[in-house]
Amino acid sequence: MTQPFLSLLGDIPTVTDPAIVRRKSRDFYWYSPLLKTLLDGLHADCLVVPRDEADVLAVARAARQTSTYLTARGGGTGNYGQAVPLHGGAVVDMSALDRILWVRDGVVRVQAGMNMLAMDRALREQGHELRMFPSTKRTATIGGFIAGGSGGIGSLVWGGLRNIGNVLGARVVTLEAEPRAIELRGEETRAINHAYGTTGLITELELPVAPFTDWQDLAFSFPTLAMAARFARTLAMQNGIDRKLVSLSDGGLLAYFAPLRDTAPAGHSIVIAMIAPSGLEATRALADAHGGALAYHASTREAEDDSGRIPLYELTWNHTTLQVLKKDRSYTYLQAAFPPRDTLALVEEMARLLPDEMMTHLEFMPMDGEISCAGLPVIRFTSTERLKEIIALYEQHGILIANPHVYTIEDGGTHRVVSPALAADKWRFDPAGLLNPGKMRSFAQG
Amino acid sequence: MTQPFLSLLGDIPTVTDPAIVRRKSRDFYWYSPLLKTLLDGLHADCLVVPRDEADVLAVARAARQTSTYLTARGGGTGNYGQAVPLHGGAVVDMSALDRILWVRDGVVRVQAGMNMLAMDRALREQGHELRMFPSTKRTATIGGFIAGGSGGIGSLVWGGLRNIGNVLGARVVTLEAEPRAIELRGEETRAINHAYGTTGLITELELPVAPFTDWQDLAFSFPTLAMAARFARTLAMQNGIDRKLVSLSDGGLLAYFAPLRDTAPAGHSIVIAMIAPSGLEATRALADAHGGALAYHASTREAEDDSGRIPLYELTWNHTTLQVLKKDRSYTYLQAAFPPRDTLALVEEMARLLPDEMMTHLEFMPMDGEISCAGLPVIRFTSTERLKEIIALYEQHGILIANPHVYTIEDGGTHRVVSPALAADKWRFDPAGLLNPGKMRSFAQG
Ligand SMILES: Cc1cc2nc3c(=O)[nH]c(=O)nc-3n(C[C@@H](O)[C@@H](O)[C@H](O)COP(=O)(O)OP(=O)(O)OC[C@H]3O[C@@H](n4cnc5c(N)ncnc54)[C@H](O)[C@@H]3O)c2cc1C
Ligand SMILES: Cc1cc2nc3c(=O)[nH]c(=O)nc-3n(C[C@@H](O)[C@@H](O)[C@H](O)COP(=O)(O)OP(=O)(O)OC[C@H]3O[C@@H](n4cnc5c(N)ncnc54)[C@H](O)[C@@H]3O)c2cc1C
Repeated sequence: MTQPFLSLLGDIPTVTDPAIVRRKSRDFYWYSPLLKTLLDGLHADCLVVPRDEADVLAVARAARQTSTYLTARGGGTGNYGQAVPLHGGAVVDMSALDRILWVRDGVVRVQAGMNMLAMDRALREQGHELRMFPSTKRTATIGGFIAGGSGGIGSLVWGGLRNIGNVLGARVVTLEAEPRAIELRGEETRAINHAYGTTGLITELELPVAPFTDWQDLAFSFPTLAMAARFARTLAMQNGIDRKLVSLSDGGLLAYFAPLRDTAPAGHSIVIAMIAPSGLEATRALADAHGGALAYHASTREAEDDSGRIPLYELTWNHTTLQVLKKDRSYTYLQAAFPPRDTLALVEEMARLLPDEMMTHLEFMPMDGEISCAGLPVIRFTSTERLKEIIALYEQHGILIANPHVYTIEDGGTHRVVSPALAADKWRFDPAGLLNPGKMRSFAQG
Repeated sequence: MTQPFLSLLGDIPTVTDPAIVRRKSRDFYWYSPLLKTLLDGLHADCLVVPRDEADVLAVARAARQTSTYLTARGGGTGNYGQAVPLHGGAVVDMSALDRILWVRDGVVRVQAGMNMLAMDRALREQGHELRMFPSTKRTATIGGFIAGGSGGIGSLVWGGLRNIGNVLGARVVTLEAEPRAIELRGEETRAINHAYGTTGLITELELPVAPFTDWQDLAFSFPTLAMAARFARTLAMQNGIDRKLVSLSDGGLLAYFAPLRDTAPAGHSIVIAMIAPSGLEATRALADAHGGALAYHASTREAEDDSGRIPLYELTWNHTTLQVLKKDRSYTYLQAAFPPRDTLALVEEMARLLPDEMMTHLEFMPMDGEISCAGLPVIRFTSTERLKEIIALYEQHGILIANPHVYTIEDGGTHRVVSPALAADKWRFDPAGLLNPGKMRSFAQG
């Protein structure tokens, strides 16, 4: 079926072994019981593993010539089925493009398939670090993060991936009639930002880095959700404290947090923070004043480098839900954008309205110049109908939901559409609709 | 008159030459026509120049024994007459305590009399820099900044001096019955923060530092105030752009800005920014999209190190007014805290209401987790009565005024009182009221 395509690839490594191809066609879509039903069993026909940009170009040309679908793949940790090929074709495993090209003036140029932990370690040697990373840093690639993610640890300071200045440039192989590698600068990179690889194959990225900091993992426990939330929001707003992460999980979640469940009182709400050494004293004093008790303190880097331990960021962002799912598959989650005003009252109100089905989980970050929080509530799944009711309940309270139980770019956004600019980029760079087909719902092939 | 005091000082350097003593009794109070009337001619009786903490302790003991008033002095750049002795006594020149004691884990320990430019240069050698500094960095001391200032360049990211985490510790010589040197940690440092030296003589400070960045001075010109303000606010809110300063001055001020008046069209509003190299491309693109034209670009550090040039931060914060005063003494200024909501509409409204008397000047920074701006409008001074009317006009529009035409701590604040904690610290550390008498209005000696 993909034989004509494969025959054009010369010595580029390819895999047709069905077991491997199936494995490399899956990501973390099973996170969602709805996506599980929709995507289970879907897979590509083959896997190609380009070694450099010339290979990626050859793959793109072969795909155009043979009308073969291409779905790029990094670490395969997307949790909306971003990397699952809906209509077969080839998975393009980008992970061999794994080198840092240069670092200067606080900017890194990197190949898109580089693993993010490896990248962070390499940056560290030069006194830098990633500005932000998903909680999947150990397995995700930088290209997969830009193409499939949105933000994470570090967003409290630097905002999300879509904020101006967080992606400086990208080199992209297009699927035009004559595929070519082009450089996108600044705002032009919106063409590939969170576009699920539907507009091009990213080969290189240029990103600003942050100065290396010896972050300290802290966890504080609080007898009530309200106390924890007040502290978390206050800490997040302290510009004077150098911080990378402020995350809140309610008492129900503690039971799923291996590093903390023996050090914090059962049922207590937990605030996890990554704080620079210079901010430790102030943070502890602030927690004290808010009635919190220190439950854990370790160096993030040491925990990350020790295979027997985990850094606390692996209890935050989308990993919070994963910790629950590891033990109990009956849970799922939502993504909620809380408004910056009356945030804490809304947090408490939602907890009151969904006492048995929802565990509160918040990630603090700025939105339009103001500290607010993203909610990633962990929800007991009973039925699709009930999940829809819960989404409606959040929206009735003015809390926007980005539905994580859908696999198209449009349905995952709060506005349910792609921007006109992104739609135009799709027509320009992939007019034949060969890239990750079906993920940009509104793209109807001519 | 201070003979008994001086005779107790041993070999501590002292000065009684009236010309020098008078010069060292003045600061920048003349900035305000009202303070000029009130403070002109006031001076100490002598000057003492302690070389180390032991000397400071000896000075404190001698003052207690002889009931001599002590007014600490750093660079003498305070602009509310903070350093002017109202009732004679001795000026304590702290500038010989000028060494960095250590730098580690992103924290510096420094003697309080160190010049801030010298401090920043020394930090730079170790890869660090000051988190924030007043526009008087070249002449101010770190102790004078903490005791008499409030924030400045860098506050856009780190907040003001009063924000938790920006002052980690302070060593302070008290004027108790038995003067001693004590260490204040964290929130305890509120005892000396912006207290005008009324609660103790600061000998050492412990402060978090920022990673050294090769800041770039940029100035953009805009045909209208509204366009400039919209750009400045948007830029200030970009967490993805590494920035240290965003300052706006309206078209009337450009004429007073030597480095810019030949490079920007006359009458255009100016936005000055300090941006990391990694953020230049995004900042220029953003300015472009807002209709701004690049009028100036240079390295902050190079301009700072070149005696023939000035860094653009010397056109911002309180220096904006100074640039005007250098040419025209009929101007003065106010300090206004704009609310974070409807900021731009209020900025335009105030410009509309005071077309001939007021030039708009804004400094962007976060307030309670939200980007807002401090206004330092330059005002044509006609009479005290009219100045009061203008203050009332701002306050009617919900814009809080911190009056810079008063010399007491209370009257300079927006609430016109000192906190109960600071009042208690005063009673504890200086029960005899010997430190900078008259500056804490509410302290009535027993
Ligand atoms: C437990 C868990 C926690 C998570 N936490 C976060 C988080 O904190 N923040 C966050 O933003 N996301 C998070 N995610 C989602 C996911 O976006 C991130 O894990 C990560 O960014 C994906 O990187 P990846 O290399 O695994 O990408 P993949 O899953 O391999 O790919 C993601 C998408 O990008 C496309 N793609 C990959 N490489 C390229 C390329 N070179 N060119 C073009 N397109 C490409 C793929 O086609 C796919 O559409 C989480 C997911 C899980 C399962
Ligand atoms: C042109 C101009 C621009 C300015 N810009 C800013 C600005 O951007 N931000 C800002 O916050 N301020 C600003 N200021 C005000 C002033 O606070 C700062 O210039 C600076 O912080 C003062 O430092 P200094 O060493 O000159 O202090 P001084 O003027 O010498 O003293 C200030 C106060 O601190 C006390 N003091 C000094 N040293 C000690 C000590 N070791 N122990 C106890 N008390 C002490 C003095 O008694 C006095 O009350 C500006 C002033 C001018 C004239």
